[in-house]
Amino acid sequence: MNTYGYLKELFELLSIPSISAQKEHNKDIAKAAGWLQKKLSSLGFNSKVLHTNGHPVVYAELVANHPSTITLLIYGHYDVQSPDPLEEWTTNPFKPEIRSGNIYARGAADDKGQLYTWIAAIEELLRYSSRGGTLSKNKDKGHSSGEPSTLPVNIKFLIEGEEEVGSENLDEFVAENKSLLDADVCVISDTHALSEEQPMIDYGLRGLVYTEVTIKAFPKDIHSGVYGGNVVNPANILADIISSLKNKDHKITIPGFYDNVRKLSKKERETLAKLPLNEKHVQEETGAKQIVGEKEFTVHERAGARPTLDVNGIWGGYTGEGPKTIIPQSASAKISMRIVPNQTSKEIIEKFETHIKTLTPDGADCSVKLLSSGEPILIDTSSRFFKSAENAYEKIFGNNPVYELSGGSIPVTATFKEILGIDSILMGYGLPNDGLHSPNEKLSLSMFEKGIRTNIEFLKSLKP
Amino acid sequence: MNTYGYLKELFELLSIPSISAQKEHNKDIAKAAGWLQKKLSSLGFNSKVLHTNGHPVVYAELVANHPSTITLLIYGHYDVQSPDPLEEWTTNPFKPEIRSGNIYARGAADDKGQLYTWIAAIEELLRYSSRGGTLSKNKDKGHSSGEPSTLPVNIKFLIEGEEEVGSENLDEFVAENKSLLDADVCVISDTHALSEEQPMIDYGLRGLVYTEVTIKAFPKDIHSGVYGGNVVNPANILADIISSLKNKDHKITIPGFYDNVRKLSKKERETLAKLPLNEKHVQEETGAKQIVGEKEFTVHERAGARPTLDVNGIWGGYTGEGPKTIIPQSASAKISMRIVPNQTSKEIIEKFETHIKTLTPDGADCSVKLLSSGEPILIDTSSRFFKSAENAYEKIFGNNPVYELSGGSIPVTATFKEILGIDSILMGYGLPNDGLHSPNEKLSLSMFEKGIRTNIEFLKSLKP
Repeated sequence: MNTYGYLKELFELLSIPSISAQKEHNKDIAKAAGWLQKKLSSLGFNSKVLHTNGHPVVYAELVANHPSTITLLIYGHYDVQSPDPLEEWTTNPFKPEIRSGNIYARGAADDKGQLYTWIAAIEELLRYSSRGGTLSKNKDKGHSSGEPSTLPVNIKFLIEGEEEVGSENLDEFVAENKSLLDADVCVISDTHALSEEQPMIDYGLRGLVYTEVTIKAFPKDIHSGVYGGNVVNPANILADIISSLKNKDHKITIPGFYDNVRKLSKKERETLAKLPLNEKHVQEETGAKQIVGEKEFTVHERAGARPTLDVNGIWGGYTGEGPKTIIPQSASAKISMRIVPNQTSKEIIEKFETHIKTLTPDGADCSVKLLSSGEPILIDTSSRFFKSAENAYEKIFGNNPVYELSGGSIPVTATFKEILGIDSILMGYGLPNDGLHSPNEKLSLSMFEKGIRTNIEFLKSLKP
Repeated sequence: MNTYGYLKELFELLSIPSISAQKEHNKDIAKAAGWLQKKLSSLGFNSKVLHTNGHPVVYAELVANHPSTITLLIYGHYDVQSPDPLEEWTTNPFKPEIRSGNIYARGAADDKGQLYTWIAAIEELLRYSSRGGTLSKNKDKGHSSGEPSTLPVNIKFLIEGEEEVGSENLDEFVAENKSLLDADVCVISDTHALSEEQPMIDYGLRGLVYTEVTIKAFPKDIHSGVYGGNVVNPANILADIISSLKNKDHKITIPGFYDNVRKLSKKERETLAKLPLNEKHVQEETGAKQIVGEKEFTVHERAGARPTLDVNGIWGGYTGEGPKTIIPQSASAKISMRIVPNQTSKEIIEKFETHIKTLTPDGADCSVKLLSSGEPILIDTSSRFFKSAENAYEKIFGNNPVYELSGGSIPVTATFKEILGIDSILMGYGLPNDGLHSPNEKLSLSMFEKGIRTNIEFLKSLKP
């Protein structure tokens, strides 16, 4: 396998600042979608850029060159998080570099690099396929099987451009294109393994309710000396509200918040307890001085099976250099909640908004905006597709994957379950310290290569 | 009096964006200082721009042309607050305009416009003085006395460029130039009247302790899905801290905070109660829907005689468009306290810092930076200089001034008292709704004219 060729192409894709949250990058969003459409076309896929009410979707399909009754849907996203704060990156987030065996770039792990392991795996398989046309000319002695091969199953790609802003238009797209997306199972590489030796599959994902809360009291900023003592202060009120949302035991105080949280069975807790995820790992990955959370749950349970509430951003008043003696007219915070089965985003946003309004004192107005939401999900681990994934991992990594409940959210898994009726297998090739959504995001070069090889084994083992 | 000529010159000064808090405006600071130095020279003053460790001071002196044993020190400041948020100004804050009888510009009231009433008053007096040289050519029939006049007392100007950033270097400058600044009394126009008919003199001013608090927990932002539930959140911690600094009765909870607060006598409370300052005024001026504060004190007492604590600005994490699922590495707030006699800034910053550190939980670091401080002050209202001011007001406004305790801070009054041993008389020509430190700051044209006339009467009445 000629990894260099795949890296060269991946670097082209990583160089496009396809930041979905920022309008000024809309042309980069279009560029990234176009790049993927062209690449998949070159592999023989029937590939299109399809319009949505937001950023476009790349859809591509290629039928196996032998009768196959199995269709695999590969989901990924070409959009990335904002690289802010830029000054903390060692190198430009959109000029990919390899340093100490890692690919550094925004999107290296989340998700361009991981998505690309599937494109590369398919290209490898097609090099040995009569369908592959010119591709078959460059035989590569490094191929894992040593044998020529053909595409073993029908493959469809669905690559979206709004994952980092809550996949706002994807549900509608999937519902409107139900027959186009018809498949037997979905595979997603947008999670992480435990280490370069120990693969892991997430069988549960938290959902998300992401809000923006604004407290406003005056038509303009007012003088803190002249009026301080006689008026409310929106920034102080916002602090009061945020502070009252959690208690000292790290419980969320919104009435009814925990009503529908799924209880873990004794057996599930025992299985989860075997995962080598502990305080030390979280400290190493985050640089946190201390691990804190609900006392009666383990680190893994807190991350995967318990809902949380966090301020993601806060702003208001004068934030420049030096002092400015004003009481701000308003103050805002981005406040998000991770939710777990069997909570629903609809239930939680309603409880949240009602509670925030109750907490807002007279003399101030409060607005709650829902920026993004996604449902939590739990996946059946006993299917034949999971067995295929397990075998592929075992061949390449030498270890069976462990199963975990993930703290992150991939709302599309809930959409696929609900609308297409299929499970998603989360074959993640990231590592815990990849720094997703943070400065200096990376993907291990070795995980990138193992990912491509594992995907090849997985695809071959799906052959009916 | 030809107001047009004075306005034309004032507009030149208002056009200079001399924002002391922002380094990129240092050249404008120098420009404003130079403009004043030149203007005072043209009136015959011995006028200099004097270096400090921060922004320069304009010093100027002119001896009366008859033996005078009285020297008046006029203090003002040529620096202004930042005009943020710019988009809320009807017109450019540094392109002065007159609309509906008001001068609109950053610095119109605070303090360039008010300072200029003194320069104009002196120019008027000099037009009738043999010392005035060419100035005496343009006799103006509008002069309030109708009689030629000379400068009745020795006058010194001290105009600083760091008032809006806490007069950091002024104490040292005054201490080092004690004999240069030797005077009998100081006059400052940087406050406001009650209305265009009712002048007011502040006899007490609150002091200020202005801090920046930062809570930091991680070397970089971390993923809120993967780690939420296991780690502290600096923005939530900051909210907890801010929220705990005041209770539901609007009392500040810092231990010992109220220990040295001067109690008002029954008589003083009765006098203050006569001032027509009530909830309705504050609501009209600020647009506040409701007036809130310590129940057992009046609106005026809360603003002038009681200490307060307010968040002036807050920031942390992702504040851009759309959602970003991070836990911020740190969060910061500008938190300031107005202090009253007999609190001291030294005592309060110590109590504040100690308490903030106590409130910071394990797993997070906290830093407290002092950005600015100034002492509270109480001025003797029985002096002969107060009598002169009272008479001048009565002549021009037709009403004696009322006396109030001001909520704002002019720390230099404490410096003059301590180092030069003199009181400051606060003859304010602003109005309560001038919007100091806010968008669309203004100065009433009629107050500008009355200010110049009142100053002329005051200066004439000081003649020994």
